[in-house]
Amino acid sequence: MNLDTLYSELTLPTKAKLVLLVLDGLGDLATPEQSYLTPLEAARTPNLDQLSKGAAQGRMQPVAPGITPGSGPGHLALFGYDPLDYQVGRGVIEALGLGVELQPGDVAARANFCTLDKAGIVTDRRAGRIETEVCEELCALLSSKIKTVAGAKVTIQAGKGHRFVVIFRGTGLEGPLTDADPHREGLPIPKVAPVDPKSAKAKKAAKLVEEFYKVALPLLAKKTPANGFLMRGIAHQPEIPLFEDRYRLKPACIAVYPMYKGLAQLVGMTRLDGCQTIADQFDRYLAEYDNYDYFFIHFKATDMYGEDGNFDAKRKAIEELDAALPILMRRRPDVLAITGDHSTPCALQGHSWHPQPVLLSSSVSGSDKLERFTETGANQGSLGLFEAKYLIRFMQANARMFDKFGA
Amino acid sequence: MNLDTLYSELTLPTKAKLVLLVLDGLGDLATPEQSYLTPLEAARTPNLDQLSKGAAQGRMQPVAPGITPGSGPGHLALFGYDPLDYQVGRGVIEALGLGVELQPGDVAARANFCTLDKAGIVTDRRAGRIETEVCEELCALLSSKIKTVAGAKVTIQAGKGHRFVVIFRGTGLEGPLTDADPHREGLPIPKVAPVDPKSAKAKKAAKLVEEFYKVALPLLAKKTPANGFLMRGIAHQPEIPLFEDRYRLKPACIAVYPMYKGLAQLVGMTRLDGCQTIADQFDRYLAEYDNYDYFFIHFKATDMYGEDGNFDAKRKAIEELDAALPILMRRRPDVLAITGDHSTPCALQGHSWHPQPVLLSSSVSGSDKLERFTETGANQGSLGLFEAKYLIRFMQANARMFDKFGA
Repeated sequence: MNLDTLYSELTLPTKAKLVLLVLDGLGDLATPEQSYLTPLEAARTPNLDQLSKGAAQGRMQPVAPGITPGSGPGHLALFGYDPLDYQVGRGVIEALGLGVELQPGDVAARANFCTLDKAGIVTDRRAGRIETEVCEELCALLSSKIKTVAGAKVTIQAGKGHRFVVIFRGTGLEGPLTDADPHREGLPIPKVAPVDPKSAKAKKAAKLVEEFYKVALPLLAKKTPANGFLMRGIAHQPEIPLFEDRYRLKPACIAVYPMYKGLAQLVGMTRLDGCQTIADQFDRYLAEYDNYDYFFIHFKATDMYGEDGNFDAKRKAIEELDAALPILMRRRPDVLAITGDHSTPCALQGHSWHPQPVLLSSSVSGSDKLERFTETGANQGSLGLFEAKYLIRFMQANARMFDKFGA
Repeated sequence: MNLDTLYSELTLPTKAKLVLLVLDGLGDLATPEQSYLTPLEAARTPNLDQLSKGAAQGRMQPVAPGITPGSGPGHLALFGYDPLDYQVGRGVIEALGLGVELQPGDVAARANFCTLDKAGIVTDRRAGRIETEVCEELCALLSSKIKTVAGAKVTIQAGKGHRFVVIFRGTGLEGPLTDADPHREGLPIPKVAPVDPKSAKAKKAAKLVEEFYKVALPLLAKKTPANGFLMRGIAHQPEIPLFEDRYRLKPACIAVYPMYKGLAQLVGMTRLDGCQTIADQFDRYLAEYDNYDYFFIHFKATDMYGEDGNFDAKRKAIEELDAALPILMRRRPDVLAITGDHSTPCALQGHSWHPQPVLLSSSVSGSDKLERFTETGANQGSLGLFEAKYLIRFMQANARMFDKFGA
């Protein structure tokens, strides 16, 4: 029997409040340079320590052994969706990151302006790294002239520097497509093609991209240095079962950065916008407590400083979060999970495959008798090492949302 | 390659004696009310402590993350059968629990007497909770008058109070069927139907149930208050590969309670009946030592007191078992596994999804250097956290029953 079907059959309604608190990129490595302490271990965290005493801990594999996830797969797993089954193209992630509202079936592409010579050869893949303002002007020009191509609605949204996204909304479209990008200078822009040559929907999408080039390139012909553009990561927004249908929990997202709001929207969470700090976010949780069952609260700084390789800043970010925790605890969630979407070790200055520590606190979580919440401690927790996609199932179990299986 | 096939291909014969000692519902939670000790941690267990020093430990997920199993799935997993692949209906479990001998394909239903008004509307789903003696009389009446329906043999066995089971033995039958139970008063008894409408075998079974109602209801018509009956959890006993064929081990079951004997019989274990206490059970093991390779010894009290939420009684039950252990050790099994079929935390007063601790002792188990056998200690064991269905494979490996895989 399929496990998802079993979970679904056993699911009971609940009045419990569940909170997933994501410290992005939380997991880290103990290295001799930092006296074998991780930022989480080096941080002063009286409130996390307090929680730890009555909580279960473990470590989570974000996707599969050795796989380093981007934010997309990392979060989909936390939301309980197997990131291998639900792949979200880079174009979709970029569009979500720029705050574009997408619908299932929309085809999105990352794009950037480039410089072409008279023969159409790419001479600068980044058009001399034009300013954001220039990019915005060019996007506005394209947007004003191109509303549709071949019956599909076109949306163009400027990003930073030379970057932008293009979204096609039509019927019967799908990705992924090969890139309209030679990936080096000295070659022309290649035509896109379906990655799966048998997909009629992808053929239709490829045709759209071709049509888009036909109308867009002439509009840029006299511009300099940005007289062309490249498109990559072209794929459709996949059809994803709604979070509320899948788990019988009404979900809300309290995030600051657009990408995480976008990922939450992908699965149908309501966005509660307008927060700037983690204290704001916890306050917003208090204010919305009665309106939702499940809150996804996203804290970005840990990942950002991990990417910078800034150990002290990452440690301080954790301390800042810890200091704000009492706000959340004014209305203690029935089930609280604290973890990362992946590790971002300072020593690697990037995402990694190392399992992120997770803390699970509820009246029935049991206690692993760990004095603190740390990577090393979490290795000894009762949750063991498990795939991140099961976290939501543990949260539901702790909310007493599953009937007994079998007699 | 299929893992079961690999295990089977690598399996060697053995002269080793393997013992699975199940402390039903053993796992528990550390809570502040009990100074963060579980019953297993609070118990005085000199004999388990002694074993622990030379044993491997770990924790087992009974079925899947967050899933709370009934006794059926819990034990099937311990016997090495994936409980998602081998689902046993509630009727079958009840029948086994009442000591009825079943064969694969038998369709079993939980039933209970109810009260119907003249129009056939259920006015009391439990017939005023009639005494067991009345139930037994009514079952005897039905049994004497109904030997077969539509060519299928009918067995009726009284349970406690208003409860009984009905078993149909025929050819080409299968479940599950929908319930012949409106699940509330004020409605007539619904007709059963196949859960899978495409199953011809289930249609045949549904027809049988209908026929059974036709002959049985008139026999009760003048009785009061039990002039009708409801049937639920109607399913067939699944075809399960025999334990002995699957593992090349001749198995025996030394249990006190009928349900566990029944579950052991499901996979073809020989029942060694007549024991009342755990000391009896260990004595029986000594007496039968030469006759079997694998002994499943079931201890019920831990689960019972967990269900009652009686911490002290659960602790004492563990101490009672520990005190009896030296009997078992008079002929020390080559491989001894001690665990639960699931956790039954006192704080929850019921089965739960929390991983049960497991101790595995053999001359080649290695030692995890743990002074005691406890939930918290088991978190640090070399077996890690694994699915319960693999326990038998670890036991076989410790019995040196697996040839090397590959060169």
